[in-house]
Amino acid sequence: MYRQLREEKVFKDPVHNYVHVQDEIIWSLINTSEFQRLRRIRQLGTSYLTFHGAEHSRFSHSLGVYEITRRIISQFERANYADWPREEGMVALCAALLHDLGHGPFSHSVEQAFQMHHEDWTCRILLGDTEVRSVLRRMGDDFPDKVAAVIRKDYEQPIVVNLVSSPLDADRMDYLLRDAYFTGVNYGTIDMDRILRMLRPYKGRIVVKDSGMHAVEDYLMSRYQMYWQIYFHPVTRSSEIILRQIFKRAKELYEQGHRFKFLPEPLPSLFNRTMTVQDYLQLDEALIQTAFMQWRKETDELLGELCSRFIDRKLYKYVEMDSLDMETIEEIRAAFDKAGLNPEYDLEIDFPTDLPYDVFRPDGEGREKQILLLDRQERLREISEVSDIVRSISGLQRGKFHLYFPDDKVRTIIDELPHEIAEIFVDQH
Amino acid sequence: MYRQLREEKVFKDPVHNYVHVQDEIIWSLINTSEFQRLRRIRQLGTSYLTFHGAEHSRFSHSLGVYEITRRIISQFERANYADWPREEGMVALCAALLHDLGHGPFSHSVEQAFQMHHEDWTCRILLGDTEVRSVLRRMGDDFPDKVAAVIRKDYEQPIVVNLVSSPLDADRMDYLLRDAYFTGVNYGTIDMDRILRMLRPYKGRIVVKDSGMHAVEDYLMSRYQMYWQIYFHPVTRSSEIILRQIFKRAKELYEQGHRFKFLPEPLPSLFNRTMTVQDYLQLDEALIQTAFMQWRKETDELLGELCSRFIDRKLYKYVEMDSLDMETIEEIRAAFDKAGLNPEYDLEIDFPTDLPYDVFRPDGEGREKQILLLDRQERLREISEVSDIVRSISGLQRGKFHLYFPDDKVRTIIDELPHEIAEIFVDQH
Amino acid sequence: MYRQLREEKVFKDPVHNYVHVQDEIIWSLINTSEFQRLRRIRQLGTSYLTFHGAEHSRFSHSLGVYEITRRIISQFERANYADWPREEGMVALCAALLHDLGHGPFSHSVEQAFQMHHEDWTCRILLGDTEVRSVLRRMGDDFPDKVAAVIRKDYEQPIVVNLVSSPLDADRMDYLLRDAYFTGVNYGTIDMDRILRMLRPYKGRIVVKDSGMHAVEDYLMSRYQMYWQIYFHPVTRSSEIILRQIFKRAKELYEQGHRFKFLPEPLPSLFNRTMTVQDYLQLDEALIQTAFMQWRKETDELLGELCSRFIDRKLYKYVEMDSLDMETIEEIRAAFDKAGLNPEYDLEIDFPTDLPYDVFRPDGEGREKQILLLDRQERLREISEVSDIVRSISGLQRGKFHLYFPDDKVRTIIDELPHEIAEIFVDQH
Amino acid sequence: MYRQLREEKVFKDPVHNYVHVQDEIIWSLINTSEFQRLRRIRQLGTSYLTFHGAEHSRFSHSLGVYEITRRIISQFERANYADWPREEGMVALCAALLHDLGHGPFSHSVEQAFQMHHEDWTCRILLGDTEVRSVLRRMGDDFPDKVAAVIRKDYEQPIVVNLVSSPLDADRMDYLLRDAYFTGVNYGTIDMDRILRMLRPYKGRIVVKDSGMHAVEDYLMSRYQMYWQIYFHPVTRSSEIILRQIFKRAKELYEQGHRFKFLPEPLPSLFNRTMTVQDYLQLDEALIQTAFMQWRKETDELLGELCSRFIDRKLYKYVEMDSLDMETIEEIRAAFDKAGLNPEYDLEIDFPTDLPYDVFRPDGEGREKQILLLDRQERLREISEVSDIVRSISGLQRGKFHLYFPDDKVRTIIDELPHEIAEIFVDQH
Repeated sequence: MYRQLREEKVFKDPVHNYVHVQDEIIWSLINTSEFQRLRRIRQLGTSYLTFHGAEHSRFSHSLGVYEITRRIISQFERANYADWPREEGMVALCAALLHDLGHGPFSHSVEQAFQMHHEDWTCRILLGDTEVRSVLRRMGDDFPDKVAAVIRKDYEQPIVVNLVSSPLDADRMDYLLRDAYFTGVNYGTIDMDRILRMLRPYKGRIVVKDSGMHAVEDYLMSRYQMYWQIYFHPVTRSSEIILRQIFKRAKELYEQGHRFKFLPEPLPSLFNRTMTVQDYLQLDEALIQTAFMQWRKETDELLGELCSRFIDRKLYKYVEMDSLDMETIEEIRAAFDKAGLNPEYDLEIDFPTDLPYDVFRPDGEGREKQILLLDRQERLREISEVSDIVRSISGLQRGKFHLYFPDDKVRTIIDELPHEIAEIFVDQH
Repeated sequence: MYRQLREEKVFKDPVHNYVHVQDEIIWSLINTSEFQRLRRIRQLGTSYLTFHGAEHSRFSHSLGVYEITRRIISQFERANYADWPREEGMVALCAALLHDLGHGPFSHSVEQAFQMHHEDWTCRILLGDTEVRSVLRRMGDDFPDKVAAVIRKDYEQPIVVNLVSSPLDADRMDYLLRDAYFTGVNYGTIDMDRILRMLRPYKGRIVVKDSGMHAVEDYLMSRYQMYWQIYFHPVTRSSEIILRQIFKRAKELYEQGHRFKFLPEPLPSLFNRTMTVQDYLQLDEALIQTAFMQWRKETDELLGELCSRFIDRKLYKYVEMDSLDMETIEEIRAAFDKAGLNPEYDLEIDFPTDLPYDVFRPDGEGREKQILLLDRQERLREISEVSDIVRSISGLQRGKFHLYFPDDKVRTIIDELPHEIAEIFVDQH
Repeated sequence: MYRQLREEKVFKDPVHNYVHVQDEIIWSLINTSEFQRLRRIRQLGTSYLTFHGAEHSRFSHSLGVYEITRRIISQFERANYADWPREEGMVALCAALLHDLGHGPFSHSVEQAFQMHHEDWTCRILLGDTEVRSVLRRMGDDFPDKVAAVIRKDYEQPIVVNLVSSPLDADRMDYLLRDAYFTGVNYGTIDMDRILRMLRPYKGRIVVKDSGMHAVEDYLMSRYQMYWQIYFHPVTRSSEIILRQIFKRAKELYEQGHRFKFLPEPLPSLFNRTMTVQDYLQLDEALIQTAFMQWRKETDELLGELCSRFIDRKLYKYVEMDSLDMETIEEIRAAFDKAGLNPEYDLEIDFPTDLPYDVFRPDGEGREKQILLLDRQERLREISEVSDIVRSISGLQRGKFHLYFPDDKVRTIIDELPHEIAEIFVDQH
Repeated sequence: MYRQLREEKVFKDPVHNYVHVQDEIIWSLINTSEFQRLRRIRQLGTSYLTFHGAEHSRFSHSLGVYEITRRIISQFERANYADWPREEGMVALCAALLHDLGHGPFSHSVEQAFQMHHEDWTCRILLGDTEVRSVLRRMGDDFPDKVAAVIRKDYEQPIVVNLVSSPLDADRMDYLLRDAYFTGVNYGTIDMDRILRMLRPYKGRIVVKDSGMHAVEDYLMSRYQMYWQIYFHPVTRSSEIILRQIFKRAKELYEQGHRFKFLPEPLPSLFNRTMTVQDYLQLDEALIQTAFMQWRKETDELLGELCSRFIDRKLYKYVEMDSLDMETIEEIRAAFDKAGLNPEYDLEIDFPTDLPYDVFRPDGEGREKQILLLDRQERLREISEVSDIVRSISGLQRGKFHLYFPDDKVRTIIDELPHEIAEIFVDQH
């Protein structure tokens, strides 16, 4: 049963000034232990090692996404748009608030290492034996399923899915603004108020009034810049590589039967892939970091070295190359091997295509990736048809290779490398 | 030996835009494992439970203090002030950068629980077998001692001590600006540029040109507001109380010989107070938080409950009272005891005088607490002699009592309490 | 008859981001020639000669006051407060928008020189043969009278008067924020959102929920700072003095029958005090400035000199004195006279009490000057009873005298002045 | 002879926080009547009619350009770059400060109407019988000529010309930031500090270190957005059209011998093109606006109507068209003519190519239009060779036609227009 709070509650937020909570259910969701857990997971993973301000959590991002969604819906209601189904407001708000609930510590690296997907975990938490589920059920027995359906993008009302997940959704707007704020760069400053005013519910999806085109262009350009300046920053990539190698090595050791001195619950279930929802909810970045601290004392030297690198921020260096073929890579690996390095761990390559770069790719996978402009004649046009600048951004490709390696170790064997290989590692950043 | 970096390095900082590093030694200090450890210690302890943006670390604050000090010194040098001893620049910069090196996790609570002082630890790290010390020694064998002397405030050049630690120092300016930025409140916005321009080295101390009086007034008012809005926020106090109780209980258990399932190094040495510098450097907030996560599964119910409260943010509620006498407190404790609660843990009181409130108290303990204004006739006057507003702030006293208690538990026994006691706990926040 | 716009209109505003217009009548009022005239009148008079950014007009301020009022009312309506008379919304909005309509060029100086009051002119414009009046009449024949009554503070619904004019009204909040923004100082940054959320209509007036006390304190401290840093800045005072002297001289000349080469309408009616509403509406700062430009060529040397001073910003210098008695003033005047200066024009004194200093004076002239805090028990208390800081601010008095004079002229005769008089003018700013 | 000020002076600036003046000559230049005149000329002409915050003057912009140049030079000097000729610092600073000295009121429109060029006037003022010239001569008899040469871009040291005028110069950086600040849009926020840090004097010009490429990309995207959002805003274009028509009509009347009731000096000399430097210095926006106010009472109806439109902001409406051929235009003109309108004044067309659109066009007219990136191997590359995004922006063309017309008048004769013509004017903004 829906209830309003007797008095609105607010959270002071540096990005949106205040986050307003009017519904008892939203308030209760925020106070569940599952949602509070998001305080212990950073929004930007290891980016704080590159941008020291980026220590903000998924908790604050989730509140932000909720707040933007709330403002959009409240505006739809004030304007009385016929195409907005008012009764879906609470589903949308809950999905917005909870969309990141399943994120684990250092998500990208952990997901890669252990083949998990945070969306799955979000749904498992929504539908498992959790406080969140029991709060959601106050709105009806099928309410948790509805929220999960929105997360899975198969909810019966596509406009709700579109509101919560689209190239112009509250999630992306919040993270642009928030990540820009906390890193301190000004690439992410967008005119959110203007974009919000231009959004229109229209025939089952959210479109943009065409007079808002320039604001959307600016938003897409901001995203483009943020990707290159922040999200793909090579130093951050370097820390992610170390992280992935730690997990890889620890898993190897575990599978080889190594007896870890430090392996409290739920880490074993992570390694042997038997995690329950309750296990998963115990995973947080404090635990991972503590494990790394303690693993420095394990007998395995490689694991110890990698953990020290992460903890003390002795990251891999990198060189940027315009081109790089498989043959050269093999030569480097062989040379490393011969010189006593371990190419499995001492060399990592970022290929241009490795990067999930879709700053904006409207022709990607169907309609939900598009931003549609609505004109006075009620015609819809994809923004890249109308805007030259968007068209030119969407075609761009990242063209550089990056080689990552432990500079200190490579330097000790540099004279043993063939000259043309050695040369690669000399002029580095 | 002093060396300049071939090319200036910068850190992107949300508060000062860029932190500039020109000296090789500063760069090396930042890259020591002891300094990197400050990334794992929050600047504002548990305040993030009240203001979700306040997740910033002592690492970023330390860089900020360094940067402000660098700007002050570089201005002194540009203006060629006769009273500034140029050769002391590096000592001052290093002391500014490293002044918080000895902070432990959730400093205030841990220090109270285990009678430690972070200044002592800073000096022990500076002078112990550490990377920091070996970097400092590059400037001379006695350089670590010099820096430690500045921290201990007994350095032979008092102007350096005054620069690094005074009511108007880089430390205070950085934390006002930084804490305001990350919490999102605007109480802490001060015109730092103007204050810096008004600083003058003068006869062994740093004074302020009298035309900067209004800027200093504004700074002191900002501090006043920040104290009441942020630092003494009753919800933050509540989380500190839980924290202190956890440590108190864990120590009791340890001393009673309880066999903790989870007690990795260096926690035992914390409990039995045999910490070495190496132990101390392993202490961070990740470890503390992980311990709390794991202690929820200890057999001791009280410890488990307290840890859950902290982790899930089920804090104590509070009531604010204009006055409260010892007799009443004893009555409450007795009533709690009789009703089956544990007054040792289920009741905490903040007395007005408990709070180390010296927003600005020039008559406090001698000259280093004063802000002196320098006029054209080279007369010095303490700001509170000249400014009515400062005088009125410095006299102010906090006038409220706060009672903290577990609302959920008190509510179950509320009917068993004498009426006049029960009444106290009814109208709460 | 009230009509809503088919689609909301917005103005981009640097202070409030967007000003939203939903009502057809507000839109029409903004487009009247009388309201557009406010674009030609600066908000801060001559302050732009001290703070070059302060070129903003009363037009933008008026939009800002309207916008804040709109937000307050819309929040009252959303919260459904029983004590807010919904039907009064449009009167309040129109009064907020139009409250400065009667301001003339460089108001303070012109009003002093010609004994006019801008409130009177606001009412004359509201009720005269003007576009504004004819727009207002669309809401009913008596609507212009209602709006004028609010301006005159004798409207039958005191809560509307209180909303539009009180120590915490939209007018003051907008000018603090706006003047801070355009001058570039950060003294005026207040947490307006929080203050607005704390406002409550209560028994015929607007009060503040007591948990908003610190935000109000901060607002009053900001005002205090803005008064001293901006509004009473001695350089601004100096330019106002020149301005007043120009008007004084021009009026003298006019009354002596001087034939001005440049005196287009409506200047003659200003001088002989026969201004009609139509004349008044032709007065703007462009005309005044053009007159000053042209008057430099009049035969009267004094007028020419004063106009040049204003146009070329060759202002009077000043000295600040802790005390100054009548006798000394008379001596200076006599000495000036003797040395060939004209004490009527070459000397101006600001007495401490000359300044309309009521940053906040709750005991001033009755209830409308008070800020009342409402607690949970529905008790009202004046803020200065509860807040030490407010009490200390409200008692403060400005303690300095300032002597203004033409430095260039005084310097030429400085040797002819008695020594103790000459000394006053030597160490100046 | 060069002299430093005894104590640095500052101007509070909302964009750069403080503008610092250390040189006596800069201080004197700012205080000349010619420089003070820039206070009476708006930076953005009529844009304040679209963005009410945009009331800032060329005075504040000029200070800003000076300040940025000062920071660049001071950084060049600190880094001791070999390619920077230190002795040219003062020429560069003076040229930066004075580069807009010759701007007249509403420059673009007046220059078009009377075939003048502000650069010419800048040089005439620098070299004429002015206060500015006499101040400059303190640095040497040929110093005014040197500064003028920089303005004319034929100074013997091309690096000084390049510093003061290039696609990445202090002028453009200041106006982007300043115009964004005062209009309130956030399109113009750029990371100026980073760009400045990346600038390098190199072989007679200013280039950019290649690691600054993304910051330059962001700057160019900001400019792109500012052009479309602010500088080419159709409402601003409309006001410029009115302005141009007023001048056109007034000139026609003057040439026809019309006896203006209001035509004070120096307007006649403007009309008959006999302006001296002294005349020109009397021209400001106050005078123009006052003329428009007074001309409403002239006997010529057309002039009166146009002036009223400008003063009361009753601008022309516009329709946007994807394509428009000469034939259609002629048909519209004929139809207007037939219906009794005056196509000379009642219709204006903006052709896409009319707009001086060179957001960034490196292949334009030679080397000074380029932005060169310098890599570690000391190779120079034009940014559009390296950056896809810049390449795509630089090719973009404005594709729309705009028809401007007096909506009120057209509506009265709309039924007399041929159907297909009438249709064009119906769906307008």
